[in-house]
Order: sequence, then C-alpha cells, then structure tokens
Amino acid sequence: MTGFVSFVSSGPGDPDLLTLKAVSRLGAADAVLFDDLSSGPILAHARKGADLVGVGKRAGRPSPRQDHVSRLLVDYAKTGAKVVRLKSGDSGIFGRLEEEIEALRAANIGYEIIPGVTSASAAAAAAGIPLTRRLAARRVQFVTGADITGGLPADQNWAALADPNATTVVFMGKRSFPALAAQLIAHGLPPDTPALLAEAVGHPDQRLTRSTVAALAETLAQDRSDLAGLILYGPLAEGA
Amino acid sequence: MTGFVSFVSSGPGDPDLLTLKAVSRLGAADAVLFDDLSSGPILAHARKGADLVGVGKRAGRPSPRQDHVSRLLVDYAKTGAKVVRLKSGDSGIFGRLEEEIEALRAANIGYEIIPGVTSASAAAAAAGIPLTRRLAARRVQFVTGADITGGLPADQNWAALADPNATTVVFMGKRSFPALAAQLIAHGLPPDTPALLAEAVGHPDQRLTRSTVAALAETLAQDRSDLAGLILYGPLAEGA
Repeated sequence: MTGFVSFVSSGPGDPDLLTLKAVSRLGAADAVLFDDLSSGPILAHARKGADLVGVGKRAGRPSPRQDHVSRLLVDYAKTGAKVVRLKSGDSGIFGRLEEEIEALRAANIGYEIIPGVTSASAAAAAAGIPLTRRLAARRVQFVTGADITGGLPADQNWAALADPNATTVVFMGKRSFPALAAQLIAHGLPPDTPALLAEAVGHPDQRLTRSTVAALAETLAQDRSDLAGLILYGPLAEGA
Repeated sequence: MTGFVSFVSSGPGDPDLLTLKAVSRLGAADAVLFDDLSSGPILAHARKGADLVGVGKRAGRPSPRQDHVSRLLVDYAKTGAKVVRLKSGDSGIFGRLEEEIEALRAANIGYEIIPGVTSASAAAAAAGIPLTRRLAARRVQFVTGADITGGLPADQNWAALADPNATTVVFMGKRSFPALAAQLIAHGLPPDTPALLAEAVGHPDQRLTRSTVAALAETLAQDRSDLAGLILYGPLAEGA
C-alpha cells in the first residue's frame, strides 16, 4: 500500500490563518515535513504521535537540500504513511512545489495541493489596504527578489515590473531591493512611488513600514535585520 | 458605542477553505453582509440570530448598488453591531474593497481585513500545479477581464500580459477572453501557450479544462454557460 502526500499551505504564519482543510489534514497525518518558517503553533494541530520532521529550508536562501527533502517525502509515502508537506504562505507561490511534485510522480505517489493564504494577501490586509484598486491598480503581480543563487534574477520583464499602474509584491526581496529599485527607476518607475515593507506578517513581532521605492531602497541598503519581509510597491491605497 | 466591520475573505467557495479566523469572526458577528457567490454552507458558521443580509453583488457584472452596500455597512455599524462583510476569494483581490473602506472611514468606523485563499491559488491547486515555476515562471500576475462596464479594460500593459515567461490569471474573464487573446497574440504571445479554464473551483460542479490560448478563445467565443470561471495561461506545469 502506497501512501499519499498532501501539500498543505500554512499561510503567512498566524495560526488563525490556517484553513479548516489544513487543520484537518494536519490532524490526520502520520508524518509532517515542515520548513522553519511554518513551524511553531501550527504544528500543534498535528495529532499526537505523528512524526514531525523539520527539513530546514529557509525562504530566500539557497537550498542545497531540495533533493534531500524530495527523497524524504518519497520514503515516508512508500511506508504507506499519510504525509503532510507543510509549506508557508500559499504553496503554489514561490514554494518550490514543482520539484517535489516531480519526485512524487516519478515514484508513482499520489498527491493533492491544499491552497492557502499567500503572504501577499496577508501583508496588504495587515496594512488595511487592497492589493487591487478599481481604476489605479487593475493588475497585481508577485515576483521573487532572490533566485536560486540568492541574488536578484537578471532576466526580468522590467517594463512589467516598472509599471506604475500595477501593485507589485516582491517576495524574499529585502536584500536585493536596492538593486531592484535602481532597475525600476532606470526603466521609468517614479522614485516616489509608494512602497510598503511588511516584516514578520502575522507574527507577534510584525512590522509595517510605509515609504517610497527610492527611500526604502536606501533604508534596506543599510538593513541587517533577519526578519523575513515582503515589499509592496505601486499606487497603494492610503491604509488603516 | 460604534460598531466594527470585519472584511472576511471566504475563499473560493469550498467551505473547508475558510480560515480559522474567518470562522471565528462569522461566529461572533451580529450581522453578515454577503454576496451571492459566497453564500450557502459558509453562512452556516454564522451564529444563530445574526442578521444575514444578501447584498446581491455578482462578480463580473456592473454593480449599480455599490453605494447601497456601503450605506448598509455604515448603518449596521452605527447601531453598535459587529458586522462581517463577507467577500469571496481574497477580499483584497478584485473585491471592490476600497470603496467600502472609504465609506467606513468617512463615517469614522473601525475595520479590519481578514485575508483569505484567492481563487487563483485554489484553481492552480485543483489542477495540481504551482502558480510559479522556478525557471519558467518567476512572475505571476492577476488581472481582471471585466472593468466597471463589464468589458475588457482598454488601457492595459500588453507587454506585461503577453509575456510568455509569466503565469497570468484572468479573473471574471470568460466573456472577454476572445478579445483578450487576440490582443495577446497581436503582442507576441504564442497562440499555443498553455491555458487552463477553471470553473466553479471548490464547488461540487468544478470543471477544469486544459487548452491553449488560441483554442480556448475559440471555445469561449461559443460559450454561453453561467459558471463563474478563472483563466490561467503561461508556461503551466503538466498537472495532476
């Protein structure tokens, strides 16, 4: 008998932003493989006696152990276990989901994806603003500030990213934002475009900072903090 | 004593995709104002005795009654009630949130936003695919296929939308997709770009159709069905 893997999106970190389905899958799992970012109170929903396995991948850093995670998933499923692979935010958005799915497929193991609240939605909600605005921001886009090397991806659609009429959310982008901002401004984005840095969204140490693209780039060039953060820029609404 | 409004995102429709926080706010509310799309089993979480008020706005259609909804919200809150304004998907994404927030602000009424699972994430999850892909799709964007007139917005960033290296999700876009596809192809998107039509995601009559941009445009030119639908296109992964 082969097992089954549920990719469960844990949301941005606040355990109250888990979905009912995520809670139910956690409660039924024989094993839960989790990243650092999604641990803590969320794991309290796992049933007593389940194997809780930290696989230690951290957002925004190169992950030499991706193969290792995939192998673990397959090995657990092959024992016949119900496995939950817990991923922070929505697992389909910058969650490295595809590599793990491919490993399961190669091993003929069934899977499902439980969607969750993306950190982008949580950051905007925490700031009291929508991601889209009826006339000003009819497009919202999510990009990553860190590719597999940890640096800013070089081959980007700069015209899309420098569009002043879209809301852009940069995931894992604190470190590379000064470089990104320079490119955006070179491609025509006004330096005083509103920006919002949202750190540790949904956690007790959550911090929201309103700024502009140019000013935030300057701040982050000096920043050495370890808080995970998202950056929103574009025609942001006024906020709560 | 003034009341308080919680904008609660109900997710794509599957009641199991409600967050714990959404359930808790529904259970505590004195009044719940809901749209057609988010009604049904989700409202079962409201406490007995709460006022359940259908405000009848439908996604993708012009809404002459937006002012009416805002006024109702304000009137309920002024009685001192805890009000839940239930919105389908994630309320910050094409949810017309800002207009209602502005009305509350003008009336000095406090509010919070509870983020939820966007239909875009749910559609991809239902198809067994991620929205982003490590090398192929490092940008994901959400756009609407219907502006306030119900038609395709004219002033779009076509270069951004015709980018073959991004995953694009079109909300409320079934009717206008033939016109959108013509523009995309005219702006360089290959006609055989993979596309996915996701209808009634998370509902019992859910329907997923894999196609290409050109073929889907042809199909939808003939389509008269009333099912709400999302369209994904781009370098989509293979799927479950």
